[in-house]
Amino acid sequence: MEGPKLGGIIAYPVTPFRRSDDAVDEDKLRALIERLVASGAHGIAPLGSAGESAYLSDTEWCQVAETSLDAGRRRVPMVVGVSDLTTQGSVRRARFAERSGADVVMVLPVSYWKLSEREIVRHYGTIAEAIDIPVMVYNNPATSGIDMPPELLVRLATEIDNVTMVKESSGDVQRMHRLHELTDGRLPYFNGSNPLALEAFAAGAAGWCTAAPCLFPAEILAFYEAVRAGDLADARKRFYRLLPPLRFLLAGGLPTTVKAGLALQGLDVGEPRRPLLPLDESAVRQLKELLAQL
Amino acid sequence: MEGPKLGGIIAYPVTPFRRSDDAVDEDKLRALIERLVASGAHGIAPLGSAGESAYLSDTEWCQVAETSLDAGRRRVPMVVGVSDLTTQGSVRRARFAERSGADVVMVLPVSYWKLSEREIVRHYGTIAEAIDIPVMVYNNPATSGIDMPPELLVRLATEIDNVTMVKESSGDVQRMHRLHELTDGRLPYFNGSNPLALEAFAAGAAGWCTAAPCLFPAEILAFYEAVRAGDLADARKRFYRLLPPLRFLLAGGLPTTVKAGLALQGLDVGEPRRPLLPLDESAVRQLKELLAQL
Amino acid sequence: MEGPKLGGIIAYPVTPFRRSDDAVDEDKLRALIERLVASGAHGIAPLGSAGESAYLSDTEWCQVAETSLDAGRRRVPMVVGVSDLTTQGSVRRARFAERSGADVVMVLPVSYWKLSEREIVRHYGTIAEAIDIPVMVYNNPATSGIDMPPELLVRLATEIDNVTMVKESSGDVQRMHRLHELTDGRLPYFNGSNPLALEAFAAGAAGWCTAAPCLFPAEILAFYEAVRAGDLADARKRFYRLLPPLRFLLAGGLPTTVKAGLALQGLDVGEPRRPLLPLDESAVRQLKELLAQL
Amino acid sequence: MEGPKLGGIIAYPVTPFRRSDDAVDEDKLRALIERLVASGAHGIAPLGSAGESAYLSDTEWCQVAETSLDAGRRRVPMVVGVSDLTTQGSVRRARFAERSGADVVMVLPVSYWKLSEREIVRHYGTIAEAIDIPVMVYNNPATSGIDMPPELLVRLATEIDNVTMVKESSGDVQRMHRLHELTDGRLPYFNGSNPLALEAFAAGAAGWCTAAPCLFPAEILAFYEAVRAGDLADARKRFYRLLPPLRFLLAGGLPTTVKAGLALQGLDVGEPRRPLLPLDESAVRQLKELLAQL
Repeated sequence: MEGPKLGGIIAYPVTPFRRSDDAVDEDKLRALIERLVASGAHGIAPLGSAGESAYLSDTEWCQVAETSLDAGRRRVPMVVGVSDLTTQGSVRRARFAERSGADVVMVLPVSYWKLSEREIVRHYGTIAEAIDIPVMVYNNPATSGIDMPPELLVRLATEIDNVTMVKESSGDVQRMHRLHELTDGRLPYFNGSNPLALEAFAAGAAGWCTAAPCLFPAEILAFYEAVRAGDLADARKRFYRLLPPLRFLLAGGLPTTVKAGLALQGLDVGEPRRPLLPLDESAVRQLKELLAQL
Repeated sequence: MEGPKLGGIIAYPVTPFRRSDDAVDEDKLRALIERLVASGAHGIAPLGSAGESAYLSDTEWCQVAETSLDAGRRRVPMVVGVSDLTTQGSVRRARFAERSGADVVMVLPVSYWKLSEREIVRHYGTIAEAIDIPVMVYNNPATSGIDMPPELLVRLATEIDNVTMVKESSGDVQRMHRLHELTDGRLPYFNGSNPLALEAFAAGAAGWCTAAPCLFPAEILAFYEAVRAGDLADARKRFYRLLPPLRFLLAGGLPTTVKAGLALQGLDVGEPRRPLLPLDESAVRQLKELLAQL
Repeated sequence: MEGPKLGGIIAYPVTPFRRSDDAVDEDKLRALIERLVASGAHGIAPLGSAGESAYLSDTEWCQVAETSLDAGRRRVPMVVGVSDLTTQGSVRRARFAERSGADVVMVLPVSYWKLSEREIVRHYGTIAEAIDIPVMVYNNPATSGIDMPPELLVRLATEIDNVTMVKESSGDVQRMHRLHELTDGRLPYFNGSNPLALEAFAAGAAGWCTAAPCLFPAEILAFYEAVRAGDLADARKRFYRLLPPLRFLLAGGLPTTVKAGLALQGLDVGEPRRPLLPLDESAVRQLKELLAQL
Repeated sequence: MEGPKLGGIIAYPVTPFRRSDDAVDEDKLRALIERLVASGAHGIAPLGSAGESAYLSDTEWCQVAETSLDAGRRRVPMVVGVSDLTTQGSVRRARFAERSGADVVMVLPVSYWKLSEREIVRHYGTIAEAIDIPVMVYNNPATSGIDMPPELLVRLATEIDNVTMVKESSGDVQRMHRLHELTDGRLPYFNGSNPLALEAFAAGAAGWCTAAPCLFPAEILAFYEAVRAGDLADARKRFYRLLPPLRFLLAGGLPTTVKAGLALQGLDVGEPRRPLLPLDESAVRQLKELLAQL
C-alpha cells in the first residue's frame, strides 16, 4: 500500500479540559490545532500519549477525534492515535477515525497483559483489516510495557498490507539502524524520543513525532530545516539549544508539562486528568526560564 | 485502622465469558467461586489481573463484582480489585465494591503515564478516603509499569488510614525484607509472585495471592499447611512439585493458562478477551501433562 | 566424583596487609583463620572476593594460599579461590592450591572480555583437568561481568568430572530453583549473597559462603542452627537481626567493611589495596553501632 | 592543560602472539602499526581492550608499549592504555608509557570491586599526578563493570589538571549530550562504540576510537571524511555499509574477530589468549563474506 507523504515534524496536541467541569474544551482544542497548522508542522497527531487518550471516556475520545480532524484535515496530514486496551475497542476507534477523515491511524499495543508475538500480530492485523487507511505501528515500551523489536515491526509491515510506517520511541538509535538494514531503508520510521531527535535524523528517520511544537514550533522547525539542508553543524547547535526544554517536557510527563507551558503562553488548556497532577510551582518557574532561554 | 484477619491463600478467579456472545458468564463465575470456597481458600479476590478487569467495560466490571461478592461474601474474606486508569474511575469502582459487600479493595496504579510519588500518594489517598473498608496496595511493575519501592508502600500505609496491607508482586524477596524492617514486621505483606511462594513465607509474608487454586487448590493448601506447621523440608518438597505448573501459568499469562486449565478440568469458562488469544494446542498438551503430574 | 562433605557456613577471610609496607601480614592471617576455625565455621575459603585476590601479585597469592592452608587444613575443609584473568594463570593457581593441601578450588570466570559459553566450558575444563580435587563453579555477575545461567552451571557439572558444586551469588533465588529442578536436587548449591541467606536455605542451599563470620561468627552459626533444626520462626527472627549489618558489609564492599570491623574488634588487618580506600569515619561509626546492636 | 590535537580516527591494534610459543610477536606488531599509520589513521592506541592488555604479564605489557611507541610515535599521536587492577600497577604503567614516548595515556577503572566515586577520583588523581602527559578517561561499563556517568567524567576533567579528554563506550548517545551540556562543548569526547559512529559524530564527538581500521581502514576513513565534509547523506550511506562488519567485530569480541580478519588478509597475528578462543570456522566464513561485501 502506498502511504500518504508523511514526514518532517509531526506535532502532538494535548487535549484541553475545561476547568469548570473537566469536560473536553473543543474551542481550545481548535485553537491549539490552528496554532500547530499555522506554525508549519508537517502533520498533526491528536490522541497520542500527549493527548491523554488513555484517560478519556469513549464519548470524549470520539469528540476529540472529530474536533481535531475537523480543524486540521485537508490542511496537513492527520494521524489519529486509536490505541485501546482491547482489540475490539481499537477497531471501533480506528473505524471512527477513518470515517471522520483521518489520513493515518497510529496504534500502540497498550494491553494490560504482556502480549506474545502471535497476539501482537493478530491485534494489528484485526485493526488494520477493519480500515482502508494506513497504520503507523508505534513502539513505546516505557508507556505500553510491550517492547516490539525491529524484527517484529518489520514483520507487521510485511504481513499486513496497510501497515506502512513505524514510530519508534524506545530512544535506542540501534533500533533504527536495524529497521533500515532489514528493509534496505524502505520502511519509513519516525522518531518519538525527543532527546534523540538529532541522531534519529542522522540515522535516516523520516520524521519526528513530538509534542514540543505546542510550545516552541519555530525552533523545532528551524532545527528540522537545518537537518534537511544537510547543515550538520547548524543542526547540532540548534539541537543542543532545544535539548534542555525537550528533556524537561519528557521528564515531567508530556500532558503535565505541555499544559503548564501553554498556560504560561496564554492558552489555558486546563489540568491533566487525575491521577496526573498539574506541574508544581517550582517546576513551572523552571519551565518558564527554559522557554525564555530559547 | 484494624484490618480484617486476612492471611493464607488468597485465590484469584478468572472472569468467565460465554462463547456465544463474549458476555460475562455469571453461572460459571458462581461455579468457580463456589469451587474456591469449597477448596478451603482463605480469601477470594475477583477482578485482579487474572480476572481481566482491564478488559471489561464498566458495566461488566460491576456485574462481575456483584456476582462474585454475592457468591462468596460472609463465607470467606472478599478482596476486590478496583484499579482503573483514572482516579475517578477507581473511586467509582471502590465505592461500588464497598456497597456490594467487599471486605477489602485492592488497588494497582495502572496509569498510562508514569506517576510521580506525589501523584501516587494522591491517587491512593483519594480512593481510600472515598470508602471505609481497608485498601490493599498492590505493587506489580511488570503489569502496571510503575514500581513502588518499599519506602513508598510504607509511606502509603502510614499516611492513609485505611491502607492496611500490601501485595508485593515484583518477585524480589528483598522488598519483603525491607517492608519487614521498615515497620518492624507490623505491616502485613502478601506475596503475588507464584515462583516466590516458598521464600516469601520464609521471609514472613502474611499470605499468597494466586490464581493457581482455580486449578489445583488441594496442592496449594497442603503446601501452605506445611509452611504453617513449620515443616520446612516438607514445604520445600511440595513447593518444588508445584513449581513447574506455577511457572507455566505465569509465563503463558494467567487468564490464558487458567482458562485453558479449567477447560481441561471440565469447566469451560470461555476464552480470554482479545488481544489475548487462547492457549495454542501444543501448550494445552503441556499444561495437561503438568496438571497430571501433580 | 564424590566431593568432600562441604556444607553449612563457609567463612571467607580477608587478606591482612601490614600498614608499614603493605605486604601480606602472615601472622594476622593465621590469627584470623584461627578465629574462624574456633568459631565453628564449617569451611574456610581464602582468596575469594573478600580476600582481594584480584589485587595480589602472584607471589603474594601463593603466600596467602600457603599460609591459610597451613593454618586451617585438616581442621576444616579449605576452599581456595584460584580465579585469574587467564586460563593459564588459573591453572597455575589451582595446581598450587592442590599441592598446598586445598580440599576444593573455587573458580570465578574473571576474564576481561565477555566469554562465550564455549569459552567458559573450555576454561573450566582446562582448570579442572589440571587437578584432582573438586571444583566449585562460582557465579557472580556483579563482580565478574559474566552471568552463567543455571543451565550452564549444570552443564559444567555434568561434562566436567570434578566440578561437583556451585556457588551462586547472583542473589536471584529463582536460579536455585532452576538448579534444583535441573538436577533433581543432586547438585549442591551454595549461596553467596548475604541478604538471601534465609531464603536460600529455604530453597535448599547446601551452605552459605560469607565473610560475615570474620565479624560476628556466633550469630551466623546460631542462625544456621535454627535453620538446620527446622525452626523457621526462630531462623527468621535471627535473620532479620543479622540483615542490617549484612547489608552494610555488602554495600560498602567486603574487604573495606570487614577490615574496618576487625579493627573495631581489636584485630588490625591493615587497609584494603588501592584503588579501594578504607572506610570513612562516619561509616566506621555506623558499622560500630550495627555491630553493637547484634 | 592543553592536550595534543587529537581527533578523527583513533585506531586500536590487537597484540600479535607467536603461534610457536604464545610470546608477543614484535615483528607482526610493527607491521600492524605500520599498516595503520600508512592508512591515514589520526592516532594509534595500543594496549586497549582490543590489545588484550588484561591478559599480558607486566613484562609483556612493557614490551608491547615500547614496540608500539617505537613504531608509531612522532608519526601520529600515540595513546597508550595503562589500566591495571591496582592503582599502583596503573601508575607504573603510566610512567613507563610516558618515558617511552606516549602522547596520551588512556585509563579504564578495571578494579575487581565496584568503586565508589571517592575511590574513582582518587584512582585517577594518583595516576594523573604521576605523569605529565594528558589522561583520557575511559568509560566502558560492559568490560570494566563500573559505569561513570557524565557528571563524574566532567568532575575528573575539572579536578585533575591533565585529564583532558573522555572516551565514552557505553553506546548511549545521551551521555555525549550530557558531556556537551555540562562543559558547553569544551571537553572533547571520543566515541568508543562502533555501532554509534554516525550518531556520535552528529552529537559532536571529537573522534572515534576503533579497532576496525586493522581490517578496513580505507572505508573507515572515507566515512570520516564524509562526516567532516558535512555530507550527511553520503556519511549515512557509508555508515550503513560499514554497520554489518562493525557489529560482527563487536559481537564476537575484538581480539578474536580482528585477529581472524587479519589472518584472512594475510597477516597472521596468532590466536587470542585463553580463555578467549579463536573464531570458529563458520564465523570465519561469515567474516570473510562481510569483508568481501565492503
